[in-house]
This record gives sequence, structure tokens and C-alpha cells, in this order.
Amino acid sequence: MTGFASPSSPVAGRLHELQQNYEAFKARGLKLNLTRGKPSSAQLELSEELLALPGKGKYMAEGATDCRNYGVLQGLAEARRLFAGMVGAPAEQVLVANNSSLALMHDCVVYSLLKGTCDSAAPWSRQGEVAFLCPVPGYDRHFKICEDYGIRMIPVTMKPDGPDVDEVERLVASDASIKGMWCMPKYSNPTSTTYSDAVIARLASMKTAAPDFRLFWDNAYGVHHLTDERVEIANMLDLCARHGHANRAFVFASTSKITIAGAGLALFAGSKENVKWLLARMMPRTIGPDKLNQLRHVLFLKNEAGILELMDRHRALIGPKFWKVLEVFESRLVGVSGVSWTRPKGGYFISLDVPKDCARRVVALAAEAGIELTPAGATHPYGKDPEDRTIRIAPTFPELAEVAQAAEGVALCVLLAAAEKAA
Amino acid sequence: MTGFASPSSPVAGRLHELQQNYEAFKARGLKLNLTRGKPSSAQLELSEELLALPGKGKYMAEGATDCRNYGVLQGLAEARRLFAGMVGAPAEQVLVANNSSLALMHDCVVYSLLKGTCDSAAPWSRQGEVAFLCPVPGYDRHFKICEDYGIRMIPVTMKPDGPDVDEVERLVASDASIKGMWCMPKYSNPTSTTYSDAVIARLASMKTAAPDFRLFWDNAYGVHHLTDERVEIANMLDLCARHGHANRAFVFASTSKITIAGAGLALFAGSKENVKWLLARMMPRTIGPDKLNQLRHVLFLKNEAGILELMDRHRALIGPKFWKVLEVFESRLVGVSGVSWTRPKGGYFISLDVPKDCARRVVALAAEAGIELTPAGATHPYGKDPEDRTIRIAPTFPELAEVAQAAEGVALCVLLAAAEKAA
Repeated sequence: MTGFASPSSPVAGRLHELQQNYEAFKARGLKLNLTRGKPSSAQLELSEELLALPGKGKYMAEGATDCRNYGVLQGLAEARRLFAGMVGAPAEQVLVANNSSLALMHDCVVYSLLKGTCDSAAPWSRQGEVAFLCPVPGYDRHFKICEDYGIRMIPVTMKPDGPDVDEVERLVASDASIKGMWCMPKYSNPTSTTYSDAVIARLASMKTAAPDFRLFWDNAYGVHHLTDERVEIANMLDLCARHGHANRAFVFASTSKITIAGAGLALFAGSKENVKWLLARMMPRTIGPDKLNQLRHVLFLKNEAGILELMDRHRALIGPKFWKVLEVFESRLVGVSGVSWTRPKGGYFISLDVPKDCARRVVALAAEAGIELTPAGATHPYGKDPEDRTIRIAPTFPELAEVAQAAEGVALCVLLAAAEKAA
Repeated sequence: MTGFASPSSPVAGRLHELQQNYEAFKARGLKLNLTRGKPSSAQLELSEELLALPGKGKYMAEGATDCRNYGVLQGLAEARRLFAGMVGAPAEQVLVANNSSLALMHDCVVYSLLKGTCDSAAPWSRQGEVAFLCPVPGYDRHFKICEDYGIRMIPVTMKPDGPDVDEVERLVASDASIKGMWCMPKYSNPTSTTYSDAVIARLASMKTAAPDFRLFWDNAYGVHHLTDERVEIANMLDLCARHGHANRAFVFASTSKITIAGAGLALFAGSKENVKWLLARMMPRTIGPDKLNQLRHVLFLKNEAGILELMDRHRALIGPKFWKVLEVFESRLVGVSGVSWTRPKGGYFISLDVPKDCARRVVALAAEAGIELTPAGATHPYGKDPEDRTIRIAPTFPELAEVAQAAEGVALCVLLAAAEKAA
């Protein structure tokens, strides 16, 4: 009828059918975006009160602190107390900074490179090569910091209970150039892995060749549950102290995905020595953080119960988006060889594995059909996924109806890419 | 009468009298603080509106930007436009950051050390020794950044029209290790010096041995006038471009002393290449600044006229404090050998020179009498004033009555220290 050759085999027939479906999907001219872990407008509305806080005449904090003026490098006492439970440290060992925990992590790397940690004999940059362990798949922004400063990244396989700790122990014990390790211990980006107590204990107790080795413990999703099960993890700071490595962990968190993504608070927690070190390092950089924003958060969130209640409301908004993606994948992709995905209990991502050498093709097909996905490879150091298999799905930002369309589109692209490969 | 020897000479008599006056002053048990350039509560009240801004439902900015969400690394377009005139650059070449311009300066140093500027063949830290020219007296926080990162500081004498530019030209022409120079071109801290057009032109046009030399042009007091004369200076970015050194100047400013000291906005301006460079350097550090605070500032300040009007109100509050200090110094210290002070037309400080080897003694005497002053030497690299002469007076924070008392006390301490030395 059309002049095209008719399918000559079942495989070719399947491919042809998928191509037709894909063209039809493309013709809908959708514009969908699943790239980044951004909260939706509805989520941001939950913190609308913050937009008018602290309110006229409200600027005093504990200790006769005028939040409008300079100073208080460590952050307001009441803010440090508010988040103490979330970061697992006494308020004295918590530091509250401006809007980006990534910036805090970056600065801890930079300070260590230029000046060394409190346990360093010399700045990292004068100790020869510096390397970090990077559980993969992982967070592209962690990897970018290393790449930018020439820190060698050593990938470590992420297992269901956390990074392959046998491998980690082996590497850090023998290689003194390994100065750090990126960890997202709960609902990890993008695999939503939660580290088991056993893995956490081994990371705290293991012997490291470098005396100034640091765990960059990015607990970004500490209260970001998606199910009734509020997963808890062991307290890394306590374990490090118990095993005689009190300074091993730099703990990071933020309220970016609790209150307002671009105008939240970044948090640091560590041993007394690490906090003292960080304050000394920050002192030449700034007179202090934006304390009014800290006061805003204290007035709005009130206490830990306030944080958890707010997180329940986030869950009510984003949970259905995750379930929709999983429902679509379940109906379209179950049983497809080489395809699997995570079923997160928290966090912001679903990690989708496609057949070997197909991830880039899926992302390209999706882009052509109007669905923007995180570039394939972003979940790996240097943007290179050696198997070209992992795709990170971020369903929080679009509306539910769009998420459903996008998930259908992604599933179609996966099937098409797999069929192309098989053809 | 008392068993003490009676004064045996006019000098001793004078000393004895001053000692008695000092003891009487001390006995008043005052607690006064002239240490830092902090705005007073009354000044902060001027921006009270900011405490309730942007207000519920207000979060959208130009270009359909939701200020609550992530992104917009360079800052809001309307914020960049608002401050374009103040920093002397088109909005495209302005960057608006979080609350600390010191942090921006620090980060520009750190990025240059670890990665190099856009004109560097290699990171500064891999080019051997790095040195900065430091006009003295100057700002202790500038010097602290250099000290912290092992950047050698080369003092340059501050003259009435700016740094000794003959000396500057001579040094930068021959020494390629000189990578930067701290400049506060208007109402400089602490001498309130304004650079002449001739000096600015020579700094823009001079030949430097280092191809990646940078002027750290900290125009912190660009609109901070204390008299009817709104002093203006030549546009450094334009001059650098005209003389073929478009990338030479990093321009910094902030609203810390315009709106709210601890919760203002930091500003950067530079050539297109420098802005591109800074954005590329900042990208691994953060997803973007706190845009809600930028929106607050746009809604509150509105336009350049709004900024100038607000600065007039600051002037009305702090001008009398400056005039009070000058009045006291005039009445107590005129004609005292080796004593002189600045009569600022703007900025936040009066710089007081006392007889050689007396500054530390004056500060100690003042402290004992309940008047806290900035440590002597703080105005010089490494905190070492070789002549021990300069004291920085910061009269903005205390109430006017306290400023008057403190100025009387300081004058008394100067007279006593000078008399002790003469004795």
C-alpha cells in the first residue's frame, strides 16, 4: 500500500510496529521534562508562609542576636537545634549555612585541597594525586566537583545494601591517595538505595591508609519518605566516634526539598574538631550566613514534628507520580530482557536500567519525541556509563498527567531501542 | 597629701593630670564598641519592609522564573538591571549572589588558585609564589584572605588620591608573581580615600608582567555618601577595555550597608569573558543563588533612585555620628604632635593616626576603660602596622550619645599614650 517493504521477520515486524507507535507519539508534539529532581509548584506552595516571614518587627533571635546584622558564623542556635535530630548531632556540632548544601560540600573539598583537613599533614593539593571513591550509579553534581578539581574518581559498585564495602575496605586500606568518598546513605540518588547498618558500621570502622580520609555523607533525603515506612539509618557520627575515627564523616543535608528549593538552608554536622575546622576555614570567606532566612525557617517549621508533617504533605503530592511511573513500567516493560528499575521508598528518583549500549539511544529517542531526560551517563564519573545502561527518571516536577505521558513515552523508547539493537 | 611624689616637671604634671582624667573616665564603667563597620538598628529599620517581602503569592520573576525553585546561576535579570548602574556594567555583565561580597572575592581568589583565571596558562597555585599588592592602611578582611592562602602581601602606600601608582606600576611591570591587587576605589576602608581619575586610568592601562593580573575592585561604598557631594569615580571596566585589558578588573559590591547587613545581596561585574569564567567556576559549586532575596530587593529598592533615596536616609542617621567624632577630635587633639585623622566624605570609617609606637597602647588603654576598638595593626597585612600608628574608628553602630562618649575616651587615651611616650 505504501511502497515500504513489509516486515520480513517477527523481530522486524515488532520493530516496525514500535517505530510506528513512536512516530505517533512524536506527532503529539509533547514537551515533557524528567531531567532534574525539582519540586513542583504544588510542593513549593506548601511553604508559602515563608514568603511573608519573618514579618515586620521580627528579627531577634536567641542570645540577643539581631538577625539583620552581621555575624554568627555557625548559624542561629535555634536553627541548629531544629535540625540537630535530622543530621544526628548535638546542636553545638551543627552548622547552618546559606541555600546550597552542594556549596558546602564543594567548599569542604576546596578547603581540604588548599589547606588540608584537621588531620592532614599538608593540604591535599600538595600530597600528590587525590582520589575519591564514587559509588555508581551516583549523583552527577558530586562527580562534577571531583572532575573540576582533577580529583581522580574510582567507581565502586552500588549494591542493594549500599556500596560494595568489601571493595571499599580493600581500596582505602592500601591507597593513601584516596582522601574521600561520596555517600548518599538514604534513598540515594538515583538508585534510592539505603545503606544497611552493617555497611555503615564498616565504613565507620574500616582502616584507611590516608589519616585524613573523609566520608562526604550527603544525607540529602533523610526525611524524604515515599511510603509509610520511615526508613532510618545508623548514626554515622556516633559510629565514627565509637570506632576511634571521630573526624571521619562530614555530614551534609539541606531543606531545599523540604521548604523552598532555591531558598532553603544548607546543613553541616561533624565532630567538634571538624566543626571547629570548618568555622576556621569559613572565617576568611564570610562574616556570617543569612540569619533572617534561618529565622524564617525556625518560625515556619517550628520543630522536628513540623518537618515530618510537612514531609508527609510532600509525599502526598509526589507519591502518586512515582506510582504512576512504576505502574507504566510494570505494564510495558516487565519481562523485557535487560530492563529493570528501582522501586524507591524515598528520595527523588527512579533508576531505570536498559539493555547494554541502549541508554544513550533511549535518551535521544525521548528527546526527539519531546521528553527531556537526564543525559545518559550522568550517573557515572566523567559522564561515562561504561555499559551505557542507566537512566535517571525524575518524576517530581511535572504534573501527574504529564508524568504518565512521559512514562509511556520512555517505555516506548526503551522498547524501540531494545528492538533496534536486537534487529 | 597622698604620699605620692608630686609632679617634678611640666611633662610629668601633664601626664599625671591625664592619668587622673583617665582613671575618672574608667571609673564610669562604660561599655562602648567602635570595632566594626556595622549598621545601627535605626539603619536596619530603614529596610523593615524587606522582612515581609516578597509576600504570599509573590515568587515569579521575569522570563517565567519561579524564584522558589532551583537555577538562574547569574541571578535575576531585574536584579542585575537594578544594580547595573551601581557597578558600572551592563546587566548581562552583572552577577548577583548570596549575602556576602567577601565570599565572592574569596571564591575568585580560590578559583584562580585552583583553576586559574580565563587568562592564566596554569592555576595560580602552580605558578610558584603568588603575591598581591595591598594599599595600606586597608581592609583587614582582604588581607586575611591572602594570609590564609599564603599569598604574599606587598604593602603600597595609600596617598590622598589613591595608592602610590608610581610604585604600583614599577612593581607589576617587573614581578610576574604579582597576580592581584586589592582596591577600594571610593571612600576606602579605613582612610575614606577616593581614587582620582588619573590613578584609576593608570591602574587600567599599566603594563603587568603577569598576563593574568587582576584588580580586585571592591567598590563597597559606591553609594555611601556622607556629604552633599556624591563623589563619583571613573568607570574601571570601561577604562580597562579601552586600554586593551578588558579582563583586568573584578568588580565587587554589595547591599549589606544599603539594606540588611547580614541578608543583603553580593554583586560581581566584569568583562563578558570574566563573567563567563565566573559562571563556569561557580557551576560545580551551586545550582543557583537565593532568588527570593533578590526579588525582595527588587520589590523594595525598585530602581537606582530608590537606592539613592535610601542612602540619603542612612546618611541622615550616621552623618551626625561622624561629625561628633570629628568635633571631639578637633577640640581635643588638634595640634598634638603626630596625631591626625581623616575627614571622610563617605564610607564607614575614620582613620586616626597617633604618634609612632602608640596605636597598640591607645587600643589597650581604651579597652581598659570599656571602649572596644579594632585591634591596632588590623589595617595592615599580617596585622602588623610597622609604625604602630593607625587606628580605625567605626562610629556607625552605637547610639550618638555613646559615640560622643567613646570619642572623648579615645581622645583621652591618645593624649595619655602620647604623654607616656614623651615622659
